[in-house]
Amino acid sequence: MSKPIYVLNGPNLNLLGSREPEIYGRTTLADIGDMAAAEAKAHGFEVVFRQSNHEGELVEWIQEARLKAAGVIINGGAYTHTSVAIHDALRAVDVPVVEVHLSNIFTREEFRHRSLISPVAKGLIVGFGANSYVLAVDALASLIEEAAE
Amino acid sequence: MSKPIYVLNGPNLNLLGSREPEIYGRTTLADIGDMAAAEAKAHGFEVVFRQSNHEGELVEWIQEARLKAAGVIINGGAYTHTSVAIHDALRAVDVPVVEVHLSNIFTREEFRHRSLISPVAKGLIVGFGANSYVLAVDALASLIEEAAE
Amino acid sequence: MSKPIYVLNGPNLNLLGSREPEIYGRTTLADIGDMAAAEAKAHGFEVVFRQSNHEGELVEWIQEARLKAAGVIINGGAYTHTSVAIHDALRAVDVPVVEVHLSNIFTREEFRHRSLISPVAKGLIVGFGANSYVLAVDALASLIEEAAE
Amino acid sequence: MSKPIYVLNGPNLNLLGSREPEIYGRTTLADIGDMAAAEAKAHGFEVVFRQSNHEGELVEWIQEARLKAAGVIINGGAYTHTSVAIHDALRAVDVPVVEVHLSNIFTREEFRHRSLISPVAKGLIVGFGANSYVLAVDALASLIEEAAE
Amino acid sequence: MSKPIYVLNGPNLNLLGSREPEIYGRTTLADIGDMAAAEAKAHGFEVVFRQSNHEGELVEWIQEARLKAAGVIINGGAYTHTSVAIHDALRAVDVPVVEVHLSNIFTREEFRHRSLISPVAKGLIVGFGANSYVLAVDALASLIEEAAE
Amino acid sequence: MSKPIYVLNGPNLNLLGSREPEIYGRTTLADIGDMAAAEAKAHGFEVVFRQSNHEGELVEWIQEARLKAAGVIINGGAYTHTSVAIHDALRAVDVPVVEVHLSNIFTREEFRHRSLISPVAKGLIVGFGANSYVLAVDALASLIEEAAE
Amino acid sequence: MSKPIYVLNGPNLNLLGSREPEIYGRTTLADIGDMAAAEAKAHGFEVVFRQSNHEGELVEWIQEARLKAAGVIINGGAYTHTSVAIHDALRAVDVPVVEVHLSNIFTREEFRHRSLISPVAKGLIVGFGANSYVLAVDALASLIEEAAE
Amino acid sequence: MSKPIYVLNGPNLNLLGSREPEIYGRTTLADIGDMAAAEAKAHGFEVVFRQSNHEGELVEWIQEARLKAAGVIINGGAYTHTSVAIHDALRAVDVPVVEVHLSNIFTREEFRHRSLISPVAKGLIVGFGANSYVLAVDALASLIEEAAE
Amino acid sequence: MSKPIYVLNGPNLNLLGSREPEIYGRTTLADIGDMAAAEAKAHGFEVVFRQSNHEGELVEWIQEARLKAAGVIINGGAYTHTSVAIHDALRAVDVPVVEVHLSNIFTREEFRHRSLISPVAKGLIVGFGANSYVLAVDALASLIEEAAE
Amino acid sequence: MSKPIYVLNGPNLNLLGSREPEIYGRTTLADIGDMAAAEAKAHGFEVVFRQSNHEGELVEWIQEARLKAAGVIINGGAYTHTSVAIHDALRAVDVPVVEVHLSNIFTREEFRHRSLISPVAKGLIVGFGANSYVLAVDALASLIEEAAE
Amino acid sequence: MSKPIYVLNGPNLNLLGSREPEIYGRTTLADIGDMAAAEAKAHGFEVVFRQSNHEGELVEWIQEARLKAAGVIINGGAYTHTSVAIHDALRAVDVPVVEVHLSNIFTREEFRHRSLISPVAKGLIVGFGANSYVLAVDALASLIEEAAE
Amino acid sequence: MSKPIYVLNGPNLNLLGSREPEIYGRTTLADIGDMAAAEAKAHGFEVVFRQSNHEGELVEWIQEARLKAAGVIINGGAYTHTSVAIHDALRAVDVPVVEVHLSNIFTREEFRHRSLISPVAKGLIVGFGANSYVLAVDALASLIEEAAE
Repeated sequence: MSKPIYVLNGPNLNLLGSREPEIYGRTTLADIGDMAAAEAKAHGFEVVFRQSNHEGELVEWIQEARLKAAGVIINGGAYTHTSVAIHDALRAVDVPVVEVHLSNIFTREEFRHRSLISPVAKGLIVGFGANSYVLAVDALASLIEEAAE
Repeated sequence: MSKPIYVLNGPNLNLLGSREPEIYGRTTLADIGDMAAAEAKAHGFEVVFRQSNHEGELVEWIQEARLKAAGVIINGGAYTHTSVAIHDALRAVDVPVVEVHLSNIFTREEFRHRSLISPVAKGLIVGFGANSYVLAVDALASLIEEAAE
Repeated sequence: MSKPIYVLNGPNLNLLGSREPEIYGRTTLADIGDMAAAEAKAHGFEVVFRQSNHEGELVEWIQEARLKAAGVIINGGAYTHTSVAIHDALRAVDVPVVEVHLSNIFTREEFRHRSLISPVAKGLIVGFGANSYVLAVDALASLIEEAAE
Repeated sequence: MSKPIYVLNGPNLNLLGSREPEIYGRTTLADIGDMAAAEAKAHGFEVVFRQSNHEGELVEWIQEARLKAAGVIINGGAYTHTSVAIHDALRAVDVPVVEVHLSNIFTREEFRHRSLISPVAKGLIVGFGANSYVLAVDALASLIEEAAE
Repeated sequence: MSKPIYVLNGPNLNLLGSREPEIYGRTTLADIGDMAAAEAKAHGFEVVFRQSNHEGELVEWIQEARLKAAGVIINGGAYTHTSVAIHDALRAVDVPVVEVHLSNIFTREEFRHRSLISPVAKGLIVGFGANSYVLAVDALASLIEEAAE
Repeated sequence: MSKPIYVLNGPNLNLLGSREPEIYGRTTLADIGDMAAAEAKAHGFEVVFRQSNHEGELVEWIQEARLKAAGVIINGGAYTHTSVAIHDALRAVDVPVVEVHLSNIFTREEFRHRSLISPVAKGLIVGFGANSYVLAVDALASLIEEAAE
Repeated sequence: MSKPIYVLNGPNLNLLGSREPEIYGRTTLADIGDMAAAEAKAHGFEVVFRQSNHEGELVEWIQEARLKAAGVIINGGAYTHTSVAIHDALRAVDVPVVEVHLSNIFTREEFRHRSLISPVAKGLIVGFGANSYVLAVDALASLIEEAAE
Repeated sequence: MSKPIYVLNGPNLNLLGSREPEIYGRTTLADIGDMAAAEAKAHGFEVVFRQSNHEGELVEWIQEARLKAAGVIINGGAYTHTSVAIHDALRAVDVPVVEVHLSNIFTREEFRHRSLISPVAKGLIVGFGANSYVLAVDALASLIEEAAE
Repeated sequence: MSKPIYVLNGPNLNLLGSREPEIYGRTTLADIGDMAAAEAKAHGFEVVFRQSNHEGELVEWIQEARLKAAGVIINGGAYTHTSVAIHDALRAVDVPVVEVHLSNIFTREEFRHRSLISPVAKGLIVGFGANSYVLAVDALASLIEEAAE
Repeated sequence: MSKPIYVLNGPNLNLLGSREPEIYGRTTLADIGDMAAAEAKAHGFEVVFRQSNHEGELVEWIQEARLKAAGVIINGGAYTHTSVAIHDALRAVDVPVVEVHLSNIFTREEFRHRSLISPVAKGLIVGFGANSYVLAVDALASLIEEAAE
Repeated sequence: MSKPIYVLNGPNLNLLGSREPEIYGRTTLADIGDMAAAEAKAHGFEVVFRQSNHEGELVEWIQEARLKAAGVIINGGAYTHTSVAIHDALRAVDVPVVEVHLSNIFTREEFRHRSLISPVAKGLIVGFGANSYVLAVDALASLIEEAAE
Repeated sequence: MSKPIYVLNGPNLNLLGSREPEIYGRTTLADIGDMAAAEAKAHGFEVVFRQSNHEGELVEWIQEARLKAAGVIINGGAYTHTSVAIHDALRAVDVPVVEVHLSNIFTREEFRHRSLISPVAKGLIVGFGANSYVLAVDALASLIEEAAE
C-alpha cells in the first residue's frame, strides 16, 4: 500500500475561518483537511493533516514525513518567512514538496514576499484559498506518479 | 455561450522543448496548448492560446482579454520581471488572472525572484512544468464559477 | 464580572533580576507580576501573568487571550524582533494590545530597534523598568474603558 | 510654416476613460488629443498626437520627432520607469521635451517614483489630469519661442 | 470676494537673479511675484507672495493658508528635500496645493530628486524657470474651479 | 520648592483637534496642557507647557530646561525624525527625558519609524492619544523621585 | 559552405553618426556594417547585419541566429541594461556570442555599468568605437575555429 | 568535583549521518557525542550532550548551563542565523562559550554567513566535521583552566 | 580697508564648555571667538563671530557674508549633517569657505560622518578642539591672499 | 624609433597554465608574452611584458609606462577589483590604456564584476583567453595610430 | 620525509605582545611560532613560520606553499578583509588551508566580520588567542592524515 | 633632544606637480617636504619625510614611527580608502596622528569620501594644497606640546 501525503500547517492556521476572514475566507482548517483528503482519495492517497504553532514541532513532522510520506504539502504560515530550520528540514526530504498559501502573499506586506520554503519546494500554489490545497494535492499526485515511472 | 480563457505566453516560450530542457523539459508550447485546451474543455471553456516575444503585443492581448475573456492565464516569461506595462495592463482586467511558471523561479537567479505580475494576479502556480498550465486552468475555472455565483 | 488582563512575557524574562542587572535592574519577574496585579486591581481587573521561552506557546496564549482577555500587555523579549508568528497572532486579537519593554531598545544594538509587535499594538511603553508594566496596566485600563463607552 | 508639436503616449494610455477612472478620470485619450490640439492652435502649432504600447515604436516616433517636430510632449506611461531606450532616443532630440503625467506618480507605488525620462526632459508637469497636457502645450510653446529668440 | 492664492518660497530663493544664474536664470523673485500676480488676476485671484529662510515660518504660513487661501503654490527650496514639518503642515491643508521648481531637480544632485512635498501636493510643475509659477497659477485656478463646481 | 516639568511640543501640534482627527483625535493642545498640569500637580510639580514650529526655538527651550527643569517631556512632532540639533540639545540635559507621541508612529509611513529623540530619552510612551502625556507625567515623576533617592 | 556571422544592433544605433558624436563618433552604422563584412570576409565568413529598436524583434533574430549563424556579435544598445528577454534568448544560443559596445560604458551613468548580456556572452569588446566590431569579428572567428577543431 | 561541559545541538542535527552526507559526512550525532565525551574525559570533564529542534528548549538548556556547566559548546544549527532568543540566553552565561559548525558556513548560502551566536561566544571552530567538536572541547578546557587560574 | 572674516557657529555650540566636556573640552565659545580674533588680527583681518540655533538665521548670515565677508569659517554643528539650505546658501558664496569641527566627527556616530557643508567648502579642519578655529583662520587668510594675487 | 607597448600583469597570473585550468586554460604567461610580442611586432612595436604580485610595483611600472610607453595593456588580476592606487596611477597616464581579462569576469563571483581599472581605460577586452591579449595589442595599435594622426 | 606546514601571518602581527594587549594578549609572535612548532612536532610535522606586512609577499609565500607544504595555516591580519589577491592565491592551493584569528573578529568593527579567506579555507579557528594556532595545527594534521588515507 | 615628526605619503604622491595639476597643483612633493621641514623647525622639530607606493612599506614606517616619532602626519593617498592594514598600524601608535589631503576628497568620486585613516587620527586637514601639510605641522606641534604638559 502506498505511503500517505503529509499536509502540514504552520502557526495561526488553526484560527482559520475566524481570523481576518476578508483575507483568509470563512472555511475552517478542518474543512480544508476534508477537501484535501477527498481529493487525495481520488488519487489513491491517504492524507496526514496536521497543524502546529511550534517551529520545532513542524521540523519534527517534516523529519517524520521524510521517512513515512509519499510527498509533502506545506503551508508554513508565518514561519514561511523566518524559519531556516524548516528550510533545512525540507532540504533533507527526498519526496516531492509543494508549498501552498491561501492568500496571495505578494499583495501583502513586503516581509511576506520572501519565502524560505520556496527554494526547497518543487513548486508553489498561492492565492486560491482552500482550493490551493486541492490543487496542491493534484499537483503532488502527478509528481509522485512521475517519480514512480 | 461563455467567453474563452486567454492563455498568454511571453518571450522565448516558443523555444520550449529545445531550449535548456534540463530546466524547462521537452514538451513543446503546442503540446501545452493542447493540454490546456483539453482541461478547459472539461470545464466548458474554449482556450485562446498565444505567444509573443513583443512586450507591446502582450499588452494588447491583455487589453483584448479585458473585453473578450472569462479569465486570463499568463506566463510572462522574461517580462515577468521587468514589465510595468504588462503589470498596468493586467490591473485594468476585471476577470481573474492566474500567473504560471514552468520552473520554480525561486531556485534560479535572484533577478527572477521578483514578479511584477504577482501583485495583479489572483494567484500563482509555479514549478510543475506543463502541468502548471493544467492546474491553472483548473484554478481559473473555479474562480470564474465562484465569481458567477 | 469583567475579563482579566493578560500579561505575556517572552524568552529569558524568567532570568530577570539576575541577568545583566545593569540593563534590566534587580526586580524579578514575580515582583513585576505583583506590581501589575496590584495596579490592575485598582482598576478592577485581574491579571493573568505568564512567561515562556517558546514562540509557539506565546502564540497559543495570545490565541487564548483573544477569547478570554479584556486586553493584552506583551513584552515579547527577543521574539519582538524576529517573530512574524506572534505578529500574526496579535493581529487576530480584537481587544487592545500594549507593548512594553523594560529597557530602552533604541539605545541598544541595531537589531533590537525594529519591533514586529509595534505595528499590531495600540501603543508602546518603553524604558521605565518594572514601572513600564504598571504604566501599561494604567494605559490598557483606559483603553478598555474607552472601548466600553 | 512652423513644425508641429509631437505628443507621444505610452502603453495602456489607449484605455484612458475606462481603466481605473478613480486614478485617471473619465476623459478619453481622444478628448485629450483635442484639448491639446486646441491649445496648440492658440499658440500657432499643429499637433501630431499618437499612442503606442510598443517601446520600439515610441523610440522610432521620438527619432522622427527629432527631425520633424518643434518640440515633444511625452507621457511614457509604464515605460517612464523602465525604458533606457526611450531615454536614449530623447537624449538625441535637440528641440525641447516636456514630460507629462495625468496622476501624481509620487503618491503611487515606489517603482513609479523614478522616471528615466525626467533627466532628459526640460521640465515636468504632473498630476493635473487632462489639464497636464494643456499646461504642457503652453509650457512647450514658451520654450520654443524662447529658443527662437 | 474669493480668497487669495498663497505663493510660498523657501530658503535662498531671495537670492534669485544673483545666485547661480546658469541654473536659476536672472529673473528676481520680485519679478516672479509680479508675473504670478498678473496671471492670477486674469483668473480673478489675488496673490499673497512670501519668502522665508526659516522652516518654522514656512510651516506657520502654510497653517495660515489653511484658513485663508483658495489654494497654495509652494517652492520649498532646500526644505523640499528635508522637511517633514512642511510635509505635515501641507497635509492639514484642504485646498489644492501645487509644487513648483524653477530648475529640473532630476538633473541635479541625487539628494534633490526626492521631494517630501510631492506626496502631499495635487501636482508638480518643474523646470520651466519663472514660467513654472505662471503655469502653476493656471493649474491651481483650474483646480479651484473644479472643486467649486 | 521643586523645579517644574517642561513639556515641549514640536511643529504642527498647535493644530491639534482640527488636523487629521482620525489620527490625532479632537482634543486640543490646550486640553492636553491642562491634563498634564493636573496630573503633575498630583505629583507635586508645576508644568511649563510650550509649542513651537521652529527647530531652533525648541533647541533653546531644551537648553533652558537643562538649567530650570526637574525633567522634560517632549513630543518632537516632525522634528522627531529629522533633527540632529534637538538630539544634541537633549544629550546635554542631565535630568530625565521622556519622549511621547499621540499616535503609534510605527503604523504610519516608514520615515516616521525612526526617532532621533529615542536614543537620548530615558523612555517612550507612544500611541495613547492625550493619555500619552498623562502617563508620561506619571513616568517622569517616578524617575525624578528615584533620582532624588 | 559555412554559416554566416550575425551582427545584431539594438535601439538608437540607427542614429549613429548623428547622435551625440562626442560619445559615439561620426561613423554611421552602415559604415560599421561594411567594416565588419570586410573583416569577416578575410576570415571566410558572410555577415548578416541588422538593427532594431524593438526588443521582441531582437529576441526573434537571436532565435533565428540560434539555427542559422556560426556566431553572434551583439550590441544591445539600451536593452543591454534592461532586457531579461534578450538574456534568455542568448542563453539558448549554442554558438559563441560576443558583446560589443562603441563607447566605454563604465565611464558613463551608473545604470549603464550593468549588462544583462555579459553573463551569457563568451567575451566583451568595449570602448574602441567602430573598431570594437572589427575586433569582435576577429575574436569570434577564432572562437568558431577553436570550436570546430 | 568539577561541573560538566554542556554540548548543545540545534535543529536537524539529529539527522546527522543521513541528511546531505556530501556536506555533513556520515558520522551520527551519537558518534560525535562519544568523541566529545572521550576528549572531555581526557581533560577531566563530563559532557552533557543534547539536541533539540525547539528554540525554546535550547534557550532553557542554556539557562540551565548557566548554573550547572563549566562551559558551553553550541552548534545552533539553523537557529544560529535567526535566534535572538538564543543570543540573549548566551549573553547571560558567565562561563566560556564556544561556537562550532560541522561545515564551513562561509562557503554556503549568504544567509548562513551571519551568526547571532558569534558575538556572544568566546571563539568559533568551523568546518572540521565531527573533529570541530573535539577541537572545541580542547579549546574550552583551556579556557576553563585559564579562568580557574 | 579689507572685509572681515565671518566665523559662524551652529546649534548648541553656545553650550560649549559645559556640554559633554569629555568630547568638546572646557573652552567656551567666547574664548574661541577671542582666539580666532587674535589670530585674524595677526593676518590683518577683523572677525565677525556669531552663533545661532536657527537654521534660517545661519542661512541669512551666510547670505550676508556673501556680500560683506572676505571669507567664511563655519562650524555647522548638527546642521552640518542635515541642512541642504545651508549647503545651498554656501554654494552662492564666492569667497573661500572653511569648514571646522572641534571633535573628530569620524570617530562618532555614523550619522555625523556625512557633511553637507564639505562639498561646498574649500577645505576642512577637524578634530583639534579650539585650535581648529585658529588653524582655520590661518588657512583662510592664505586662501584670501592667494585669491588676491 | 617608436616607444614600446607595456603589458602589465597582476597577482597570481604567474601561475597561469597550472592554476584552475578549467577557468584560465593551459597556456602559460610566457606563451602569452610571446603571442603579444609577435602581434605587436606586426604593428611595429616592441613589448615590455611584466608580472608582479605587488600592488606597489604595478603602480611604479605604470608610472614608468607614463614616460616610456606608447600605450599600456593591463590585466590587473585581483587588484582590478580592489586597487584605487592602480586606478590613480593609470589616471596619470596620457597614452591609451586597454584593460584585458582572460576569463569573463561577469560570469564569476559578484565581487569580480566591478573593475576600478575600467573607468580609466580607453576600452576593455574580456573573456577570450590568451587571445584577449592579441586583440588588445591590435586595438591598442589602432589607438596609438589614431592619436598620432 | 613529509612536507612542512606553512604558518603565514599578515600585517602588524609582528607587533604582537605590544599592540593593544587587551585585544591580542601579551604573547609575542615568536612565542606563537614556538607553540605551533611544538604541536606540529607531536604530529610529525615541521613548521615554516613567517610574517609579512606586504600583500604581494604573502601571495608569493602561498604560491610557494602550493608546491612545498603539506598544509597551510593563515592569519591574514588586515588583509583578511580586503585582499582578493590572497583569496586567489589560496584558491590555487590543493592542500588543506586553515584560517586562524587570535581575537573574535565578530565582536569587533563591522568591516572585520567579512573574511575573503573563509570561502577558500577548509575551516576556521577564531578567538582563542595563541591557542588558536595550536588548535589549527591539530586540525590541519587531521585533515592531512584524512587526505592521505 | 626631541623626536622627529614623521610625514608619510602614500601611492602616486611622488608624481605631484605633474599628475592632474588642476586637482593637485604644480608644487612637487620635495617642495612640500621643504615647507613642512621649515614649519617644523620653527616649532623645534626635525621632519622625516617619506613616500611609498607600497602598502606594506607604509605599514612598516608607521611601526617605526610608533617607536621613533613625536607625532605622525599621513597622507595615505589611495590607500586612505582601502587599507585596513594602515588603519591597524596607526591604531598601535600612541603619539598623535594627523591626516592630510591636498584636495577636498569630499568633492571627488564617492569612493574617496570614506577614509579608513580618519577613525584612528586625532584630526584632519583637507583641501588646502601644500598648505595642508604646513597647517598639519602646526596642529601636530600643538598636540605634542599639550601631551607633554
